[in-house]
Parts: sequence; structure tokens; C-alpha cells
Amino acid sequence: MLIVGERINGMFQDVRKAIQNKDKNTIQDLAKRQADAGARMLDVNVGPAASDQISAMKWLVETIQQAVDTPLSIDSAKPEVIEAGLKLCKKKALINSTTGEKAKLDALITLACDYKTGLLGLTMDEKGIPNSVQTRVEIGLKILSAATEAGIPTEDIYLDPVVLPVKFGQDQIGIMLQTIRELKLLSDPAPKTICGLSNVSQGCPDRSLVNRTTLVMAIACGLDSAIADPLDKQLMEAMITSELLLNKFIYCDSYLTAYKKAL
Amino acid sequence: MLIVGERINGMFQDVRKAIQNKDKNTIQDLAKRQADAGARMLDVNVGPAASDQISAMKWLVETIQQAVDTPLSIDSAKPEVIEAGLKLCKKKALINSTTGEKAKLDALITLACDYKTGLLGLTMDEKGIPNSVQTRVEIGLKILSAATEAGIPTEDIYLDPVVLPVKFGQDQIGIMLQTIRELKLLSDPAPKTICGLSNVSQGCPDRSLVNRTTLVMAIACGLDSAIADPLDKQLMEAMITSELLLNKFIYCDSYLTAYKKAL
Repeated sequence: MLIVGERINGMFQDVRKAIQNKDKNTIQDLAKRQADAGARMLDVNVGPAASDQISAMKWLVETIQQAVDTPLSIDSAKPEVIEAGLKLCKKKALINSTTGEKAKLDALITLACDYKTGLLGLTMDEKGIPNSVQTRVEIGLKILSAATEAGIPTEDIYLDPVVLPVKFGQDQIGIMLQTIRELKLLSDPAPKTICGLSNVSQGCPDRSLVNRTTLVMAIACGLDSAIADPLDKQLMEAMITSELLLNKFIYCDSYLTAYKKAL
Repeated sequence: MLIVGERINGMFQDVRKAIQNKDKNTIQDLAKRQADAGARMLDVNVGPAASDQISAMKWLVETIQQAVDTPLSIDSAKPEVIEAGLKLCKKKALINSTTGEKAKLDALITLACDYKTGLLGLTMDEKGIPNSVQTRVEIGLKILSAATEAGIPTEDIYLDPVVLPVKFGQDQIGIMLQTIRELKLLSDPAPKTICGLSNVSQGCPDRSLVNRTTLVMAIACGLDSAIADPLDKQLMEAMITSELLLNKFIYCDSYLTAYKKAL
């Protein structure tokens, strides 16, 4: 499964400081360590604190690409910040993210076509995050239809059921799992599914346990990829073991090591 | 969820020796530790080595009940050994197990009615363990129909999708998970689902990781109970966290401790 490394995000204090101080080492170290740990894509988010988000995004993308050749997920709420990042990407990138809101969806589909990238679509829209599986799946279908109509291949479309913190809405996890199951039924071949995993454990004392348990449940329901922390060893072991149990690669006694070597 | 402690089984060397030597301490210690760790039922299996299985079962049941009042799952392939155990049970017991084979099913349903116990039904029959979800579910339906017709309440019927070792049949886990999903759709109210978890990791170097990952996936698919090792702390934490994420009890920061207190 595709793990998109979440750590280069200005919401983390070390990254925020590194952006402010143009400290390449911190960013490049995070990039290398995440790639070494099994992330096959790295999320890049300048965070809310950057004063000039466009130049911060450019600096991050250039800095990361000097250290690793891992593809990047360009993560921003602002299309102009996303485009600034995409212009510099050397490998096929992922746009993170659109929603079902028409103006945004149109703008980001255009960017995905222009830059030949993947597109992540959150199953929410201008009315917010729906509380029902049905409405989330309807928004997913809207994004999938519009994107494929514009010529984006299904395998480049990643639908996100939206993960909310268990601490603040316990019914949300069941809705999220059922949304994943139903998103996978929208088309054949099915769209990919993805989620921003760590949000589930916001405010929880044992975040890693909550994250990996959510991940394993979501994989059982059809999750294909996750924006998550590849430096969490137990998370990666749970992910690899789930893939093994679902027969995604051949069993050998040293499967944990073998899986990483094959990445 | 109901965890049935698996440790009092003559297949384990310490238990086999304890049966041979009539060593009550070892058995009672295992009973107490499993109950303390969160097992709400204890499986009792004399194992294949006992020379007189009926007297070994009687001795085990009496010995355990001198130490704890946890209900027992009387586990044997032989109806006469099961009946010898049931006769002595002070609390409502579980018969472990019948299959879909008619003669066995009839005999064990009679026992379940006579002793007012729960009934565990493996979704296999005289032809062996089916390789398809459909046939396992058909056998599950056969067991469910026969048991309810005989007056056993649905909530006392535990259907088992059959867990085989991932090392020897990787496609089996996907079949098992889908079987759980479909067994839950057989009736309303649904029958309970259960599995002998540890079998999945036979021959694997990191058994605990494989066991707990399988358990979390199965819970996501509707598993209600498992015969498992409650002394595996990480397994119990994964189980409790899964239940939390599925909104089975209210979140609090100390939910791991709170869950066990509420047992």
C-alpha cells in the first residue's frame, strides 16, 4: 500500500522552524528518514504559519528534491500554492486536495490535467463534512465523474472518506469505514482510497495505538493508501502484516524485512 | 467483545504436564491470570495426550471452578467428553464445537438444549473446510437454522468462519473475513461470530503481531468474540481500541483501563 509520509508539514514545530530559518538539514533529514522507512510519497504542506506560502512551498519542494527522488504530494488549501509546488516537481505528483465544491473541483482538475498528477478528493463540500455515508459517497462519485470526464485515469484518483478525531465524534470511524467500502464499489476498476490517518488520534494519549488500529480496520475495508507517519515502526508493521493477511504479497518468515526491501 | 481464554488446553506443554501430574496450581493460576486479564470465558480442552479424556475434563472443570467463577467453554471433538464437562459447570457454558455434519450437529444441539448452553458451530462439515465463502455461509445457515429450530436463542449461537494458518494458505484470511461479514447478515438479530484466533499465526516468527492484526481486521468485519490469549497485552489493547473506534463504549482518555474495569 502507498504510505504518504506526513511529517513535512508546517503544523509540526520542527518543520515550521525549519521553514522560517531556511534550515535545509531538518527538512532533508525528514525526507530521507521517511523514504527509508517505507514512504513511497512525501506530503509537503507549508502549514498555516508561513507568511509567504508560495515561496515556502517552492523552497520545500526544491529542498526535498535535492535529498530524495520520492514523488511528492503537494498539500495546500490554496490552488495557487499547489501550482507553485507542482511547477517544480520532477516526479509525478499528487494534488492534496480538492473537495466536491464545484469551483475548487474545476480548478484542481485543470491543474491535475495540466501537470499530469494524481488528484486527492475529500468527500466533503461547501456544506461541510457530511454526517452520512451516503452523502460522502455521493460527493466521491461527483469528484470521480468530473475527474474521469476530464481525462484523469481512474488509477490516479484518490478518494478520501475524511477521518475525524475519535475523541470528538466516535460515530465517525464507523461512517469512515463504511464510506471506504462503498467508494471501492463506485467503478470498475475502482478508484483508489486514501485517508489522513493521524487525525483520528488528535488529543488521545496513546496516538500510535489508535492510529495503527484504525489503519488495520480501514485496510480490511479496502483502504489503498494513507497519509501517515512512516517513522512509527509499529504502524508500518501493522500495515505490512495487514497486506500479508490480505494476500497482497507472498508469505515468508521474514516478511516484514522482505516487504520493505521490495518497495 | 467476548474473549474466551485459550490457555487451558492440553496442547500447551505446561497444561499437559499439569493434567498428568494433577497439578492444580498451574491450572488455577492460568485461570486466574486469564480472568484478570479480561477473559470473560475460559476454554477448557484436555488435549490429545490425555489417556482418559473424560476424567481429565472433569478434573479440569472442577479445578478451574475452585479458583474462578468465570463461565467455561467446553472444548472437545468428542460429545461424551463435552457432556462430562457440562455436567459439572456451575455457570452457563459454551459447547466448543459442532460442525455442519448432521449426526454431530444433532448430538450437540441436544446437549446444548439439555444443559442450556451456548453452541459454537464451525462452518465446515464431513467434506472438510470449504474453500469458498458461499459454502461456509451455507453451513453456517444450516447450523443456525437447526439450532434455532431446536429452541436455542440466536444470542447463544456462535458461528466460526474457521481460521487457518496464513503461512499455509494466504487466501484463507480474505475468505474468513468475508465469511464473517456474511454470517452477520444471516438473520436479524444476527448470530454471534467467533474464531479460534491463534491458529492464524501457526509457524510464524512474530505470532502476536499476526494475531492482533488479524483480530482487528476481523472486528472491522463484524467479529463478536474470539478464543485467544488474554495474557497477550498488545492483543487486548488492540481489541479494546477496535471496540472504541467502533463506538461500542464511550471515549475517555484512560479508555484502556476503563474498559477492563467495566468487564
